[in-house]
Amino acid sequence: MAEYSIGVDLGGTNLRAAAISTSGEILASISGRAELKAGRDAVIGDMVNAIVKLRDQVGGVLAGIGMGVPGFIIIEKGVIVGSPNLPAFDGYALRDDIEKRLGATVVLENDANAAALGEKWIGAGKDVNDMVLLTLGTGIGGGIISGGRVLHGHVGMAGEIGHMTVVPDGNPCGCGNRGCLEKHASATAISGMAKIIGLGADLTSEQVFNLAVGGDEKAKRIFEAMGKALGIALATLVNIFNFPLYVLSGGPLPAWDFFAPAMLQETRSRSFTFRNTETKIVKAILGNEAGLYGAAYLPVLARKS
Amino acid sequence: MAEYSIGVDLGGTNLRAAAISTSGEILASISGRAELKAGRDAVIGDMVNAIVKLRDQVGGVLAGIGMGVPGFIIIEKGVIVGSPNLPAFDGYALRDDIEKRLGATVVLENDANAAALGEKWIGAGKDVNDMVLLTLGTGIGGGIISGGRVLHGHVGMAGEIGHMTVVPDGNPCGCGNRGCLEKHASATAISGMAKIIGLGADLTSEQVFNLAVGGDEKAKRIFEAMGKALGIALATLVNIFNFPLYVLSGGPLPAWDFFAPAMLQETRSRSFTFRNTETKIVKAILGNEAGLYGAAYLPVLARKS
Repeated sequence: MAEYSIGVDLGGTNLRAAAISTSGEILASISGRAELKAGRDAVIGDMVNAIVKLRDQVGGVLAGIGMGVPGFIIIEKGVIVGSPNLPAFDGYALRDDIEKRLGATVVLENDANAAALGEKWIGAGKDVNDMVLLTLGTGIGGGIISGGRVLHGHVGMAGEIGHMTVVPDGNPCGCGNRGCLEKHASATAISGMAKIIGLGADLTSEQVFNLAVGGDEKAKRIFEAMGKALGIALATLVNIFNFPLYVLSGGPLPAWDFFAPAMLQETRSRSFTFRNTETKIVKAILGNEAGLYGAAYLPVLARKS
Repeated sequence: MAEYSIGVDLGGTNLRAAAISTSGEILASISGRAELKAGRDAVIGDMVNAIVKLRDQVGGVLAGIGMGVPGFIIIEKGVIVGSPNLPAFDGYALRDDIEKRLGATVVLENDANAAALGEKWIGAGKDVNDMVLLTLGTGIGGGIISGGRVLHGHVGMAGEIGHMTVVPDGNPCGCGNRGCLEKHASATAISGMAKIIGLGADLTSEQVFNLAVGGDEKAKRIFEAMGKALGIALATLVNIFNFPLYVLSGGPLPAWDFFAPAMLQETRSRSFTFRNTETKIVKAILGNEAGLYGAAYLPVLARKS
């Protein structure tokens, strides 16, 4: 019988799960709301039900279950900590609980890391072993893949790309820093810049994009500023890692043509390594599915170690 | 018979070599000038003579020879490229040549990476597997140790810590960037700041240090500025890697008490991860010997793979 694994993507609003073959084909999937208000046990129950449903539907040999969750993961314990979206799970032995209920191997991973792993497995990074993913959203998340695996750091907090300093005296950030990348290049930052330069008080990044498409010069300048901030961060990443690939994903990606020229120009001028090596900065190709693919890849990868 | 390896440290001015036991004890050492003007063959001859001398002197089982050299190393080819100090070696098959002459395994490594490996093996990082070394000198070099090994990147150019952007509109750098860390925190940068703020036109970083010791406020402010720049870079490194240890080495280290308070304050305020994890920023302890130890460790480590 064919082997497969189940990936679960637990977000602040949605719960998705998919059975995926070990060659990366989606065999079945389920998606619904994450009923966080109903409490931790209800959410765990929903996850277990979704997994059981997929398992019954697909048949075959289950290699294991991978779960991408927002928050830091204490890898060796299989525990989530410090997730603003999942306070009820803080410190809870989620991995062991689900393993016990299902009798299958469970691997937890931070959602941005899972997305990076998904892009590496079957997306923009499928030809490399070393890459960095930057996810542009409310904030900017990141995942670093080194030697084909997630770089975790000593307590699983590596990859906080969104909190790299790009403007030392820049916009204050909730993390305590000033001028974090995510304060200058996330979807939220785009809205914020639109307000500051008088383009509009409550514009989404998508609305700013539509204005840029329509030829609005202020909207275009916002994406240029965003591209510059991304370029400063990317140049530093290239100088530090000398990885062959840097992948961008997230909501503002359709605005690529407005921010990428400034981004690439800035990276080029700030990184000797970028100018002198084969280094690519590209769009992600799996979109919202990246985390689901990456989660499903976790138990497959765990067996390789 | 006891096993040992030979480390070679080839710099722009000095050539040093040492026979070191696999437990890190120096058994014998040689140091002299690197006679680069005499040409490539003469330098290679000097290295081979030094190695043979050590081998004859020490006896025992030679595990291999490691060499730290300034420049990029194409690891799989054992070739040095783009070294301003060693133009005659550019593209030359140095590893294979020395292996042939001596009948022993040779491993080449960039000098900053070798120093990082030395500190990891037997110095400030001996209790960790993941660390970053920053070497403050004319420029700022760096070496990243991940999982006990040097992080090379795809063509061996990883670890260019000195070219992280810390001041986007800062001092221009030879690499094409502005505001590189090494333009704001190296020994050269200290001399440069002394000139700019009118402390003196041709002061070495050591002289600026002596003025600070004597109570000179301008000299103190220079080290504060240096500490701030280091802190911006360190916060970004901590946010990216979440490694437990960051080690500083180099000439300006005696000025630690003048630059470290600003450095640590800046790192603390800019890194959530630094404030919430056990993360150390410390002085290197091997000094100039780090590269020699790291070079000797290379063949030992190569056998572990």
